[in-house]
Amino acid sequence: MREAKTKGPGRGLEAEAVIAGLLRGESPICGERRAYQPPLCPALQGVSATRPLDGVADLEVLKVAGEQLPFVSQNRLLEVVPSQGKSLWDTPRNLGVVLSGGPAPGGHNVIAGLFEAAKKAHPENRVLGFLAGPKGIITNRHTEVTAEMVARYKNSGGFHMLGTGRDKIDNAQKMEQCRQTCTALKLSGLVVVGGDDSNTNSAFLAENMRDLGVQVIGIPKTIDGDLQVPGLCQIPFGYHSACLAFATEIGNLNSDCKSDLKYWHFNRLMGRSASHIALEVAFQTHPNVILIGEEIEEKELTIHQVVRLIADVVVARANQGKNYGTILIPEGILEFIHEINALIIKISHIIAVYNREAHEGEAFHHLSFEDQVQLIDNNDIWRDYDSRVFLGLPPELQRGLLLPRDSHGNFQYSLVNTERILLGMVATYLRKQRSKGIYKGTFKTQFHFYGYDGRGTFPTKFDCDYTYNLGHAAFSLLANGATGYMAAIKDLHLPVEEWRPIGIPLAPLMHLEERTGRLELVIQKQKVDLESPAFMILEKEREKWAMEDDYRFPGPIQFQGASAEDKPITLMLNALSS
Amino acid sequence: MREAKTKGPGRGLEAEAVIAGLLRGESPICGERRAYQPPLCPALQGVSATRPLDGVADLEVLKVAGEQLPFVSQNRLLEVVPSQGKSLWDTPRNLGVVLSGGPAPGGHNVIAGLFEAAKKAHPENRVLGFLAGPKGIITNRHTEVTAEMVARYKNSGGFHMLGTGRDKIDNAQKMEQCRQTCTALKLSGLVVVGGDDSNTNSAFLAENMRDLGVQVIGIPKTIDGDLQVPGLCQIPFGYHSACLAFATEIGNLNSDCKSDLKYWHFNRLMGRSASHIALEVAFQTHPNVILIGEEIEEKELTIHQVVRLIADVVVARANQGKNYGTILIPEGILEFIHEINALIIKISHIIAVYNREAHEGEAFHHLSFEDQVQLIDNNDIWRDYDSRVFLGLPPELQRGLLLPRDSHGNFQYSLVNTERILLGMVATYLRKQRSKGIYKGTFKTQFHFYGYDGRGTFPTKFDCDYTYNLGHAAFSLLANGATGYMAAIKDLHLPVEEWRPIGIPLAPLMHLEERTGRLELVIQKQKVDLESPAFMILEKEREKWAMEDDYRFPGPIQFQGASAEDKPITLMLNALSS
Repeated sequence: MREAKTKGPGRGLEAEAVIAGLLRGESPICGERRAYQPPLCPALQGVSATRPLDGVADLEVLKVAGEQLPFVSQNRLLEVVPSQGKSLWDTPRNLGVVLSGGPAPGGHNVIAGLFEAAKKAHPENRVLGFLAGPKGIITNRHTEVTAEMVARYKNSGGFHMLGTGRDKIDNAQKMEQCRQTCTALKLSGLVVVGGDDSNTNSAFLAENMRDLGVQVIGIPKTIDGDLQVPGLCQIPFGYHSACLAFATEIGNLNSDCKSDLKYWHFNRLMGRSASHIALEVAFQTHPNVILIGEEIEEKELTIHQVVRLIADVVVARANQGKNYGTILIPEGILEFIHEINALIIKISHIIAVYNREAHEGEAFHHLSFEDQVQLIDNNDIWRDYDSRVFLGLPPELQRGLLLPRDSHGNFQYSLVNTERILLGMVATYLRKQRSKGIYKGTFKTQFHFYGYDGRGTFPTKFDCDYTYNLGHAAFSLLANGATGYMAAIKDLHLPVEEWRPIGIPLAPLMHLEERTGRLELVIQKQKVDLESPAFMILEKEREKWAMEDDYRFPGPIQFQGASAEDKPITLMLNALSS
Repeated sequence: MREAKTKGPGRGLEAEAVIAGLLRGESPICGERRAYQPPLCPALQGVSATRPLDGVADLEVLKVAGEQLPFVSQNRLLEVVPSQGKSLWDTPRNLGVVLSGGPAPGGHNVIAGLFEAAKKAHPENRVLGFLAGPKGIITNRHTEVTAEMVARYKNSGGFHMLGTGRDKIDNAQKMEQCRQTCTALKLSGLVVVGGDDSNTNSAFLAENMRDLGVQVIGIPKTIDGDLQVPGLCQIPFGYHSACLAFATEIGNLNSDCKSDLKYWHFNRLMGRSASHIALEVAFQTHPNVILIGEEIEEKELTIHQVVRLIADVVVARANQGKNYGTILIPEGILEFIHEINALIIKISHIIAVYNREAHEGEAFHHLSFEDQVQLIDNNDIWRDYDSRVFLGLPPELQRGLLLPRDSHGNFQYSLVNTERILLGMVATYLRKQRSKGIYKGTFKTQFHFYGYDGRGTFPTKFDCDYTYNLGHAAFSLLANGATGYMAAIKDLHLPVEEWRPIGIPLAPLMHLEERTGRLELVIQKQKVDLESPAFMILEKEREKWAMEDDYRFPGPIQFQGASAEDKPITLMLNALSS
């Protein structure tokens, strides 16, 4: 078939302009989002002061933290409040800012907030952005943040305004390099945007740069949602946006599987060990099965029992003629299966000790699978029982447990195809049920891993507002002399007008954790609290979700209309139900 | 750390209401979308007539189509126009509607449009929806569409209002069952919402139910974008929404990789053989590498040359210090690599012939890999050259080529992890370049497959409007006596006020194609036209995209604001640039 009319009228000037617009790197939404000006809570609208906030939380400092961080351990909880006076900083200052760890939606607004607060306080204040993460401080690679940059990146996703990285300032040499950089740049303050490891960095930087007059403030960032301080920091920034991006996809799969009536969708969700993301996505989408690592740990389930959790729903739904559904699997689930976690910890330890003594080309991951297994088998901490558990696992999982650890020595859950491993085990179990005549359904499946795609999303309005206020709060804390704090916003479940910016002392957040085979002082990650209202409500709701198709379709993130006002459902449930 | 305050104020009635709202299956966006009333083009706003539309396109009918479809082959292109007269159908009628094949965003609005047009024409007109696809017609499983259902599903994604399926009405017995169902339900008309195979069904149904007075109209649906009629049907419905859903994710990966600076993201995109989806997503996101199957075919590239297309960009970017990027791979790419496609066609033929004679338990996919290879090797159509090509492929690709075909005998591209296979080959190539000192970068990668998640998205405003008008157009064609047509909207690139509803005769769209080993008359899929403005513009733009980070972030699909007015960029380029 050919089109008979060969040509339309000649391309007009108007058409040319439309075409040029279509080919621009700038999409229509970018301009719209840039035009959005996040509101500030009352305490951050003018000059602010800080005052101690007592009786709100127990902030005990571990003895070892007190020893390693003698100065910043003395910090008390602070609240930022409006002040009638003048800004305490009346001469121009240089401030540094660094983005650290995985990107999280909203990071650019922290910088925007910090920049605009600094410029309002004194037009000659400067904000210097370190490039590609903490390495940028160590090597003094930076760029000056300008009003034009802030305008360009405001309310946008990603960390590409400065780039990010995972370097840790974890030895005396790197600390000295940071001191040199901060001295050379005449910094009065440094804002570190990051997760638990980065905020740990902040505490040590604050302690060690005190004599230089460089104050350090951390910002709670992580899509994983595990950097929380009960009663003070309900949720880190980025979590809401990433959860909604994942929930959009899972909601779409709900719609697809209920239309097509033939697939079980196994969805692994990023989020490290804790199951915060899966919990929020579950409330957003009402899947048929949701695994919560912390619950599996509490109930001491074996991997075969976890497989049953899934398979029993598949069988029950098949009996209703429903051979489709959606399943949420947190990427960190393996850590909570006690028998598997014991293996992970032992293997991580063995790898760390081995790699510490090995030459570069001889690192553990260069060994053959057989040599790796033998090395582990010969180690003193490896018992016969461990071997029995290990050998009873599917080969893919065995290999997964031996994968290289990250630069902090952590097991990299995102590298293991947990959803495929569980699916394989579910399929095996279903075959047995079929041979007994218990299961008569069909079991066609699709895999999905949602992670990087959600991490890079445009931030929701909630995250835009939250991070812009965090940037301002960080400036207020610095201007009022604070160091060794994490900026936070209390009462996020309330309207912005009722938000309360605070400074949380970093030292009491720390505990001892094994990293690369050594006990280190790091900020404690928060797992899903099984006593929390959100989890207890989930326990009740999910029975309905399993059998009925009570699917929820959250749709794509909106920036106008009713759904633009969305906040994390878990945040709201925990705040409103207590 | 513990929260010191144990409890907030008791849970008030207001909080209870908020919590109940958070737990509802209904998300805020559902209500908002339901409230949207798509506009109608002028021809569909009142009573309409049809008139022949000549000289717009060559509509030649293949001889074999004329023989098999003697009645509907005589159809001429029709345009739906406003009429001053009364509706031709002045007594109540029953109409059937069926959703067929994979879900596509907008299907519910076809039903909404059909229903509302029918009720406006006569309040006693009834619309009966067949359940779970064409099987619903064969077995007479249906539900009556009500105003309440239409209100509930309007502007929502998926096909779950009725469910869908892939059954084909491809033999005399099934046709007879359809005749019985339509007779029993006293249908005057049947609307078939589907892709090329479903519209092929429509033509045969129209031909075979003519004597019963049952008219049949097809609706062009497929996210793949390959059901086009040059000059008449620029794009099927669902394509825009699915492309934007995928583009959201790819845009997010652009943001993530430019922030994190360490991953190459290999993205396989659903879309069967043609590369329409990849082309649109490329314009929406400006990735670093995009493969277009039709171009690879035209240039007769081998798989090793395709690997070079990717690897050369990886090397060039590494030389600029950029060890990250995004790559788009259409899932049907293998079909366009001549040496691979030859294997696919031969193997499909061998499988079809073998399965036709095999007992159920002995079907090809029950054989061992070795037996499969031997069976193929022994076949007369398999040459030594084929064996050499086959044996030179990575094992995963070898196994992929032998995977079971779909119920139409088609190779199932979505089952082959093409992105992993290409990545493996790229990695091998890069190792060689590294050993020669040409490549010095790092090559860390992530895989993604986007398909089912995009298929289930909420339809864009464009698709909402398009499908609602299609539903009305289908009713107009039926009411004016047409049968054996596909409803379409001409000039989609113009505002709705200028849209022109038409009826495209189905017979001229058909050609002969091998299906399950036999030549069958089916509607011809449209590939990406390498002479089209969109492709020629891509050719120029992509050189910039490869090296510069000209990433475009289309963001999540919006329903308000400037980006809500988005239409497919390829549609606009082809319409405006010609």
